Amino acid sequence: MSTNLSKSKVAVIGLGSMGLGMATSLLRAGFDVAGCDVSAEAVEHFGCAGGRAVRSPAEAARDAEVVVSVVVNAAQTEAVLFGENGAAETMAPGSVFVSAATMDPEIARRLGKGLEATGRLYLDAPISGGAVKAAAGQLTILASGSSAAFAKARPALDAMAGTLYELGDSAGIGAAFKMINQLLAGVHIAAASEAITFAARQGLDLRKVYEVITASAGNSWMFENRVPHVLDGDYTPRSAVEIFVKDLGIVQDMARGARYPVPLAAAALQMFLAAAGSGFGRQDDSAVARIYAQLAGVELPSGK
Amino acid sequence: MSTNLSKSKVAVIGLGSMGLGMATSLLRAGFDVAGCDVSAEAVEHFGCAGGRAVRSPAEAARDAEVVVSVVVNAAQTEAVLFGENGAAETMAPGSVFVSAATMDPEIARRLGKGLEATGRLYLDAPISGGAVKAAAGQLTILASGSSAAFAKARPALDAMAGTLYELGDSAGIGAAFKMINQLLAGVHIAAASEAITFAARQGLDLRKVYEVITASAGNSWMFENRVPHVLDGDYTPRSAVEIFVKDLGIVQDMARGARYPVPLAAAALQMFLAAAGSGFGRQDDSAVARIYAQLAGVELPSGK
Repeated sequence: MSTNLSKSKVAVIGLGSMGLGMATSLLRAGFDVAGCDVSAEAVEHFGCAGGRAVRSPAEAARDAEVVVSVVVNAAQTEAVLFGENGAAETMAPGSVFVSAATMDPEIARRLGKGLEATGRLYLDAPISGGAVKAAAGQLTILASGSSAAFAKARPALDAMAGTLYELGDSAGIGAAFKMINQLLAGVHIAAASEAITFAARQGLDLRKVYEVITASAGNSWMFENRVPHVLDGDYTPRSAVEIFVKDLGIVQDMARGARYPVPLAAAALQMFLAAAGSGFGRQDDSAVARIYAQLAGVELPSGK
Repeated sequence: MSTNLSKSKVAVIGLGSMGLGMATSLLRAGFDVAGCDVSAEAVEHFGCAGGRAVRSPAEAARDAEVVVSVVVNAAQTEAVLFGENGAAETMAPGSVFVSAATMDPEIARRLGKGLEATGRLYLDAPISGGAVKAAAGQLTILASGSSAAFAKARPALDAMAGTLYELGDSAGIGAAFKMINQLLAGVHIAAASEAITFAARQGLDLRKVYEVITASAGNSWMFENRVPHVLDGDYTPRSAVEIFVKDLGIVQDMARGARYPVPLAAAALQMFLAAAGSGFGRQDDSAVARIYAQLAGVELPSGK
């Protein structure tokens, strides 16, 4: 008996830092993984990792039981599914599309309904945890969808996730949870930038500020994680300013549609926009601190 | 030999929930503690706890080696020190005034200089941790002052603090650290309120939101601590809205003076002001969520 016969086929569409990590986690778990990306370099990395490189979502999705989409936003996800050479052209009936991009829950609902109307399954499954956890198969996945979609996707989810939240029985709920997290995360990065640069303005010992705050009621996950980049003057992007321009933009659009005011998220978005507009869009999101420093003539630590 | 002779004398001025806890911690550690408060009820509680009730800061400070001031703000601290029947009238040369109120660092510097010019010591020592930790002698104290002030105050500080940060050699530095913490804490309470009510607006399972966020990058100390009050619909004040009206007000005044923009803190302050203006000033600071709920017609959990 050939082992190949027992290997379940999975497609990964989008092989950036997150998608590549997820694809290698799937390979390690024994899946037959086909992958594609618009970047030739990304595809080559995937080939070196032992993956089967293909040319389009349609080709990747052919014969796959699970199609994992790890692209940047809703528009790309829609193109991956329903665009030319899209996955929906070739996905087998009963196979499941797992969508990892952060997007407006309304769009997730629409994409889910559109695909399920054709006899395929859709799992709304935004991710969090960064590239290191993606490569380790230790992501947090905030998933919602039908029990059939969960059942079909589960072996692949188990290979990619350290924590899998099952948040509801239809697309959109996972996306909504992710947006709540992004609202908080974005506000906390801007607040951390505002506070640490204000401390610099007052001439405080910034490493001592970090020590005190991380042990106090003013702490946040983001303060603890991002402020060291500011202290080191190292704005190499672990996650870029543009990500929160996008995600707080989605929060603001959702909130405006719902007639729900978000003064904190709106203020934070302006600071990310200022950072992007000042040319820091591809720098680490902690570069928001550089805007505060510019605006107030404060000197922050410079990198090596 | 009478043990009384070896008992060091400490005064505690201000016997609210924090001051009373600190005074009882000092009593437990064996100090002879004199206390006063404008409230007869507070003084009575202190007497029941074994303290020596007196009528004024001047009387409390007489013969005390350490005078601990636990009042609400800079104005009260100044009155305790230099007002009628103030501690500065009677403090012995070389004794130390320990100031716990949160205030503008500039005022802490001024009070410190004013007192030290008269031959007494001043320790800038804002506190954090809440009433339970105050009563347990487990506060966090953010202190700055001369080494003489630290030396004189240390036995009393050890009785009151779980963690004592020594942040610099002059008054104002402790206050500045505290204001950085309050900036973050205030923004995080407002952000937590904005996010959890936005989740309610979308019909999400709020306890599930709490579970997911506290395990995710969107978490903050304040989200974790305050959101349960919203989930329980219980706005009994552990710390009141008015505290952050005051503290974010100080942040905004400091920042304006320093020509440093604080868009996040400013947005958060507006929400605390809206809460106070709507009659929630003495409710728990998580009542900011009730403002978001009012503004968007959202129903939050109601208490028992």
